[in-house]
Amino acid sequence: MTTNQNQMKIVLQMVSGYGGEFKTWRLPEAKADAYTDMDLYVEMAQLAEKGKLHALFMADTPALVNNIGVDTPMHSMDPLIAMTSVARATKHIGLVGTFSTTFNEPYNLARHLKTLDVISHGRVGWNTVTTSTGATADNFGTHIATRQERYGRAHEVIEAVQSLWGSWGENAYIHNKETGQFADLGQIKPVNYRGEYVKTSGPLPIPPSEQGQPVLFQAGPSGEGVELAGRFASGVYANPFTIEESREYRDILRDAAVRHGREADEINVFTGFMFTIADTKEEALARRRQVMAFDPEETSQRLRYLSAMVGLNLTSLDIDKPLPEGVRRMLQANWQDPRSPRAVELLQEGYSPLDTLAMGVINYHPVVVGTATDVADFLQEWFESGATDGFSIVPDLAHDGVKRFVEEVVPILQERGIFHKDYEGTTLRENLGLPYQYGLRK
Amino acid sequence: MTTNQNQMKIVLQMVSGYGGEFKTWRLPEAKADAYTDMDLYVEMAQLAEKGKLHALFMADTPALVNNIGVDTPMHSMDPLIAMTSVARATKHIGLVGTFSTTFNEPYNLARHLKTLDVISHGRVGWNTVTTSTGATADNFGTHIATRQERYGRAHEVIEAVQSLWGSWGENAYIHNKETGQFADLGQIKPVNYRGEYVKTSGPLPIPPSEQGQPVLFQAGPSGEGVELAGRFASGVYANPFTIEESREYRDILRDAAVRHGREADEINVFTGFMFTIADTKEEALARRRQVMAFDPEETSQRLRYLSAMVGLNLTSLDIDKPLPEGVRRMLQANWQDPRSPRAVELLQEGYSPLDTLAMGVINYHPVVVGTATDVADFLQEWFESGATDGFSIVPDLAHDGVKRFVEEVVPILQERGIFHKDYEGTTLRENLGLPYQYGLRK
Repeated sequence: MTTNQNQMKIVLQMVSGYGGEFKTWRLPEAKADAYTDMDLYVEMAQLAEKGKLHALFMADTPALVNNIGVDTPMHSMDPLIAMTSVARATKHIGLVGTFSTTFNEPYNLARHLKTLDVISHGRVGWNTVTTSTGATADNFGTHIATRQERYGRAHEVIEAVQSLWGSWGENAYIHNKETGQFADLGQIKPVNYRGEYVKTSGPLPIPPSEQGQPVLFQAGPSGEGVELAGRFASGVYANPFTIEESREYRDILRDAAVRHGREADEINVFTGFMFTIADTKEEALARRRQVMAFDPEETSQRLRYLSAMVGLNLTSLDIDKPLPEGVRRMLQANWQDPRSPRAVELLQEGYSPLDTLAMGVINYHPVVVGTATDVADFLQEWFESGATDGFSIVPDLAHDGVKRFVEEVVPILQERGIFHKDYEGTTLRENLGLPYQYGLRK
Repeated sequence: MTTNQNQMKIVLQMVSGYGGEFKTWRLPEAKADAYTDMDLYVEMAQLAEKGKLHALFMADTPALVNNIGVDTPMHSMDPLIAMTSVARATKHIGLVGTFSTTFNEPYNLARHLKTLDVISHGRVGWNTVTTSTGATADNFGTHIATRQERYGRAHEVIEAVQSLWGSWGENAYIHNKETGQFADLGQIKPVNYRGEYVKTSGPLPIPPSEQGQPVLFQAGPSGEGVELAGRFASGVYANPFTIEESREYRDILRDAAVRHGREADEINVFTGFMFTIADTKEEALARRRQVMAFDPEETSQRLRYLSAMVGLNLTSLDIDKPLPEGVRRMLQANWQDPRSPRAVELLQEGYSPLDTLAMGVINYHPVVVGTATDVADFLQEWFESGATDGFSIVPDLAHDGVKRFVEEVVPILQERGIFHKDYEGTTLRENLGLPYQYGLRK
């Protein structure tokens, strides 16, 4: 491991090509057809690479899961095709895709990902998820199994895939014209994996990549998810809302790794984080307000939810003005939503209810709405408090958000010495400081 | 249909990156690591596009199926990754990949191929095969089902995939910033496909490509295969050894299309054809002899097989000299192998047994070993006799074979007016003269 432990790691969530705020596609700076425009997707990846971001992260659910009548889709058309397109147009940045352990055959998955790892020269990661979305099960003509069964299968699929990856010996690709030996068949062996859920014989006829085989990631905080991460994952995608929550979860994951005979540092936690960057905090807020104005009805719903979060019916007040001093003291954070204390704090600081919403208090990740320095400060605070090893950043709109992050936030982080100035190596494994692995870990 | 029916169509078999002669990788002009070098693969595709070839064709079997101890693999590491890589680096050439109807889930396949069709701007074809290789079944923890079951499932998988392709209405991708309508949900409907072998609900959230959806191909000459082609295929990959055999098979396929309510011309037959091109026939033969010399044992086996083909034990003669006149008259073609008459013919013309082998009489396609004009003559004769609509060409070694074909054979064919001088349109469907189709044909 040659990475600097005092430096955070950053991966970029590509979402569906737009960004994590599903109505930002209506902004003037947005490109309305980003969903189907692979050129644009590749450009964003190249920009992220210019900023030395460690990897691109592609979440996925094989189903239509949100209201694309008015919002942009949650996921790309197809993560494998997107990753391949980006692989051919970049040289350093990692490519981490989400592929379900439930709705893929191990042989197909092993083949796709190892091939992609070979042609990208060792830059691929696989985010292993079990998928619990009913609409996905419907697409595969089945139902969602119990968590126990899903994770039982997940362990087997990962074992099978890693076994297949290792079935072609590391030195079996001879291709020596003089001797006429193309491959050393003595080093290419069947795996004959026989699990309860999946079976596969192999071998998979694909040589190792420069990093041997893809890196595993995991997402999903259940007990079963943590065990899976402890056993297999080198990166975990996490969704905490507070530093304390994040630190606690990170410790649990590190313990799980040790319990499985690994070093705690072999797991990197990437905390989801959203942002809107502008030259001033006011401009950033104005942009968020502009997006909120696209859907007044949704804003009304969110105001009602915000009211529940802070224990006060805000809709009876002027939602565009700071709350009266007397009212501010009455606010009380709802313990059922970990985002509530932040909402109370902002209202008490004098943000109006609408601006409090615009600050992203109901988003599915912590949000910074402000300048590049505000973003850098946030990342530094979380990182240096031991809450996380890095971040999975989600711009509100990728088209300009990635550019601002790369051109404005990255230099600040680099200057502060908490983000690398260049890639440590040529592979994802090297850039994340991970130990070598080929095949199933013994 | 705007293509000229007096012009042949040509697709290039990419094999594993080397060529159809599995020992040509040892030639000085070969690149020994072509299997893993996607740059080289893409370069060949670009060259094929320069020659206005209609498409690249990627056969596939998801298993290790030949002796890569000494031969190059039969297939690419992964056709989907290869097609995507090529799609991003070309503009006109079609991309036809083989994907098993047995060992893929319809939703995954529909998603991969439609996404690739969208990002390639309508250049994708799917060669539907049922896969009857035991080693493949082993990789998926199962056994090979009966032909009836395999084709039963194939019909269902194609129906399901085409239904999913059609589940996003052709005009549903609104993405209108002003109105805020991203998609017209009224045009995006579940398919609720319920077959005996596969089930899927959909919808698949992917808009149409410039050609609507991928073009279907078929390979496999059984009665069941012909029915599948007649119902669904716009292209058929065929392996006849004689013009008569080819013409007969083409007529059978055209009848099958008509039986399924389609025009006979909606099926294009592509005949497999291998070649070695040099400045003179002697040089071309010398190259083949050089390759044969890499494996004397295999040559001995082939001589024994050739003996059986022509009804005479050739190994007792001088295999490097023309047969004595008296012996030539004793040759008799073995009716069990359709390649036998050609072998007898060459030996009677005075080719030595070794040169007869070098002429490719035991190859799995008809072979021309000679000059560019010899190749053009062969293609013209087959095409103009009504044996085929075009060819699936297989160079002995892709690294220089594609170049010679594009730079030397294509201009001859163009000059003779039997090959197009430019692409007719921008999509595979347009370039093959196929009618429009979106979703499952009613």
